[in-house]
Amino acid sequence: MERIPVLRMGPLLLITIQVDMHDRLALQLQDDVAQRISDFGSTGVLIDISSLEIVDSFIGRMLANIAAMSRVLGAETVVVGMQPAVAITLVELGMSLPGVRTALSVEAGMESLMSAVSNAPDEAGDERPQA
Amino acid sequence: MERIPVLRMGPLLLITIQVDMHDRLALQLQDDVAQRISDFGSTGVLIDISSLEIVDSFIGRMLANIAAMSRVLGAETVVVGMQPAVAITLVELGMSLPGVRTALSVEAGMESLMSAVSNAPDEAGDERPQA
Repeated sequence: MERIPVLRMGPLLLITIQVDMHDRLALQLQDDVAQRISDFGSTGVLIDISSLEIVDSFIGRMLANIAAMSRVLGAETVVVGMQPAVAITLVELGMSLPGVRTALSVEAGMESLMSAVSNAPDEAGDERPQA
Repeated sequence: MERIPVLRMGPLLLITIQVDMHDRLALQLQDDVAQRISDFGSTGVLIDISSLEIVDSFIGRMLANIAAMSRVLGAETVVVGMQPAVAITLVELGMSLPGVRTALSVEAGMESLMSAVSNAPDEAGDERPQA
C-alpha cells in the first residue's frame, strides 16, 4: 500500500486522509508526521478527513495519537473537514476525540493554528529553527 | 468510491491524489475542480502526485484536462511532487505533459502560482471576486 503524503506548507504540515486506514498505514503515517515535524520544525499539523465517511475507534485513536505525539514535539494538531454524520456517530459512540482540536475547513484550521502559534511565544519551539 | 477532496487554501485549490484513478473518479474530480474554481474564484490549482508510483496515459490525460479546463476558467495548474521514476517513465513513454506546469514540492508550486498570479494583472479574474 502507498503512503499517505505529508505536505509541508510553510510552518505547517498538511495531511489528507482518503484511503481506508489499516495498522501498518497508520503506524507509517505517525512515523512520517513525527519525522517531518522534527525535520522542518513544524509548529502545526492539519489533518483533513473530509473524504472519510466512517471514522471508527481505530481512526479516532490514530488521530489522538498523532495529536499527542505532535504536541510532545511542539506542534499543535487540528482535524478539519469532518462530515456532520461522522461527528454525530462519534458522539453517539462516546468518542469525543479528547485532546484533538477541530475546525470546519482547512482555512479555518490554518487560522486557528496560526493564532495558537502567535499566542504561545517560544513555548513550542525554542530549541529548533522555526523554518 | 469516495471523492478526492479539493481543499481551498486562500486563492488556491489543493488536490492530493492518493488512490488509483478510474473513469468515474477522474470525471468527478474534473467536475469538482471546475465547480470550486467557479465558486471561489480560485486563481491556482495545485495537484500533489507524490504518492503515485505509476502515472499512465490515463492519469496524464486527466492532469492535462484539468489544467486546460482550469486555464479556461482563469486558474493556473501546477503538478507537484512527481517521483523521479515517474518522470523518467513519462518521458520514455513520449508523454511530456504539454500545458502542465510542474514543481518539486507544494511550497515551490505555491510560489510559482503566486508569482504567476501577480505577474498577470486582471487577465485571469476581472469578472469574479478574488476571494
